[in-house]
Amino acid sequence: MHSGPAPLSGLRVVEVSSFVAAPSAGLALAQLGADVIRVDPPGGGSDANRWPLARSGASLFWANLNKGKRSVAIDHRSPEGRELLLALACAPGPDAGVLLDNLVGRHRLRYEDLCERRPDVIHAHIEGHNDGSPAVDYTINAEVGVPTMTGPAETQTPVNHVLPAWDLLSGMTVAMAIVTAVLHRCRTGEGARLELSLADLALTGVGNMGWLAEADSSGRARPRQGNHMFGAFGVDFETADRRRVMVVALTGAQWRALREVTETSAVFAALQDVLGADLDDEGDRYRHRETIAAVLRPWFAQRDFGTVEQLLRAAKVLWSPYLDMAEVAHRAAGDASSGASRIDQPGIGPMLSTGRPLRWNSVTTGPVPAPVMGEHGAEVLAEVLGLSTREIGRLRDRGIVGGADCCGSPIGDLPCTI
Amino acid sequence: MHSGPAPLSGLRVVEVSSFVAAPSAGLALAQLGADVIRVDPPGGGSDANRWPLARSGASLFWANLNKGKRSVAIDHRSPEGRELLLALACAPGPDAGVLLDNLVGRHRLRYEDLCERRPDVIHAHIEGHNDGSPAVDYTINAEVGVPTMTGPAETQTPVNHVLPAWDLLSGMTVAMAIVTAVLHRCRTGEGARLELSLADLALTGVGNMGWLAEADSSGRARPRQGNHMFGAFGVDFETADRRRVMVVALTGAQWRALREVTETSAVFAALQDVLGADLDDEGDRYRHRETIAAVLRPWFAQRDFGTVEQLLRAAKVLWSPYLDMAEVAHRAAGDASSGASRIDQPGIGPMLSTGRPLRWNSVTTGPVPAPVMGEHGAEVLAEVLGLSTREIGRLRDRGIVGGADCCGSPIGDLPCTI
Repeated sequence: MHSGPAPLSGLRVVEVSSFVAAPSAGLALAQLGADVIRVDPPGGGSDANRWPLARSGASLFWANLNKGKRSVAIDHRSPEGRELLLALACAPGPDAGVLLDNLVGRHRLRYEDLCERRPDVIHAHIEGHNDGSPAVDYTINAEVGVPTMTGPAETQTPVNHVLPAWDLLSGMTVAMAIVTAVLHRCRTGEGARLELSLADLALTGVGNMGWLAEADSSGRARPRQGNHMFGAFGVDFETADRRRVMVVALTGAQWRALREVTETSAVFAALQDVLGADLDDEGDRYRHRETIAAVLRPWFAQRDFGTVEQLLRAAKVLWSPYLDMAEVAHRAAGDASSGASRIDQPGIGPMLSTGRPLRWNSVTTGPVPAPVMGEHGAEVLAEVLGLSTREIGRLRDRGIVGGADCCGSPIGDLPCTI
Repeated sequence: MHSGPAPLSGLRVVEVSSFVAAPSAGLALAQLGADVIRVDPPGGGSDANRWPLARSGASLFWANLNKGKRSVAIDHRSPEGRELLLALACAPGPDAGVLLDNLVGRHRLRYEDLCERRPDVIHAHIEGHNDGSPAVDYTINAEVGVPTMTGPAETQTPVNHVLPAWDLLSGMTVAMAIVTAVLHRCRTGEGARLELSLADLALTGVGNMGWLAEADSSGRARPRQGNHMFGAFGVDFETADRRRVMVVALTGAQWRALREVTETSAVFAALQDVLGADLDDEGDRYRHRETIAAVLRPWFAQRDFGTVEQLLRAAKVLWSPYLDMAEVAHRAAGDASSGASRIDQPGIGPMLSTGRPLRWNSVTTGPVPAPVMGEHGAEVLAEVLGLSTREIGRLRDRGIVGGADCCGSPIGDLPCTI
């Protein structure tokens, strides 16, 4: 893996965050070269011990969402710590003055307070609902109807999906907004107040696919379709050796490839006369999905996975095997082109990790470790605020600033690094 | 809804796209003020009739993913049409020269061909796998292990989630990359070749939450947990009137609020002694999630939804009701603060639609209609390439350029607009 270019090199972002959305925004910026300084209370914030955990007890979650950032521990709930944080966020320089946070309640940072210190500040804030009330992906997803659409057709209760999709999408949306605001500030000199609620983001998400419009015009919720893809043909099949594959015929070419490899063209030609359907039409493929699946199922059931794989690949059918996460990890670790590799994460040891998926002029960036909590406190305070070693020492003595060497770290039991 | 500021105003992006990922990238740019010109073959591309459909037969999917763009129909599979597309993408001007596409196969546009015409072009390409082979969200999701983690604990087969989360996340990732490349070009004069595969994006997605590292270090896939949130306490409950709510106690404060409102503090205090657990620890709450749920379940089962709602809200418990999409749409349409409203979409009529969730200086942008396919052909070719009415007429006569008035439109049966 080559070290990539750094298009956001020089941009400094102060991140006061927890959980997925805001940290993933900072991660995206860091992976494009920004200097992202994550600020946590000494000892770590509410996500410091979030599962999954490594054998050492350190959080694999935290270590993967904070790769390549610098870490500063500041007790920003104290008045002095808050001043320090505001000073960091509003430090001078054309590429500084960017704050990303998802703080809630009385410790929330106000745009007006930042603006007073730096009128062209860019402040990006992620919240649950747009009235400031909290929410997490798992509650928001319930509110926007997705769990009632997910799962086997016969299911009577909601099925949560495990992927915190709205969190990840919120993070990237805010990362995009921050870069847009930096561009805007370069051009106009103006800062920006950027706010995004998970709830608004999720509602527009289901809106953008036409799901809101569909329910509004029909007055009905779409019934569950199990593993069938909506509006075309796509479903899972079991092979003779009990492996599973997901097969999709969304376009005409994909439908032709699937019929040809399974030698069912004549069957479907005859069948569509009986059905009064045009199976070249994606809607008719969807309407008759159960029949199509029933015709195709024996072909898969009669062949083991190796044969299915070889034949589908040669025929250019659109498909994938279902893998469990252990298989995904095993494959990724063994395949250099996956971009994943084991790195040495302080407090954890060898950790399978990923880098930036985007290729910029054909170059990706591989995984890098996350910092130890508080690791860069002295470095950042000296560099950004010009504090002396003595001043930093006083802040530490009074517990305003933590460090990896004095306040412990949720990333396992670590040797002192500063 | 106020009309918002337009931080990307003046930026022109040519989008040759289909389905979700690339169109959602263009949508995000358009919603920040960019002039996004979507190019389709005359009659529409492979997503022109994608479900859900309106009663008129027009695609609610297409209309919602292409809001606020301009539409030009060019037969870019013909040599002359291809030249026209390259000329549009590489038109001069500091804010032009940006192409976004997800073309596959022999019609794919090569960065080198674009670069020849405009050395500082920004070319963003979304693909299935990083070897160029196709994939869609539903196949990628199977490959990265999520369906084997989703669904009731007793399920033996994969459960697909219906939300095309990787598509949406890919779109926003590419939108962010494009803005970053524009900023980089402003600063350095250099263009950029940007490439993202759904497969790489999804692998880093599961990597960023520590799921790859977890499976790699344990050698095992995490078992399904039904609707339980992983690593803390969160699960669904049924109320007396058979409504469902999702309740989460991720932080200490949320756990306290939940115990207090359900008057179970003494129960859990006694219970943790018996269990030898510390339920203030999120991991122990997760380990004992079934026991905690069993203790809490009667409280919900004994109260109807209205009472549960009132009590949970007053106690600041983190929770949400499960809604189906008809309820989501009904709520959104009736709540001005949701940002959703019914607009008049040509070919469809009144359509419940959403705008930009991001607030920029406290302003969002409301929903706007999508174009009629080919609506802006003459306008764009005259404006961007300086073609005369006669030249455009000749291109139309030969079928190189389509228009809403001559080639039909997948957006229902429409009155001529140009």
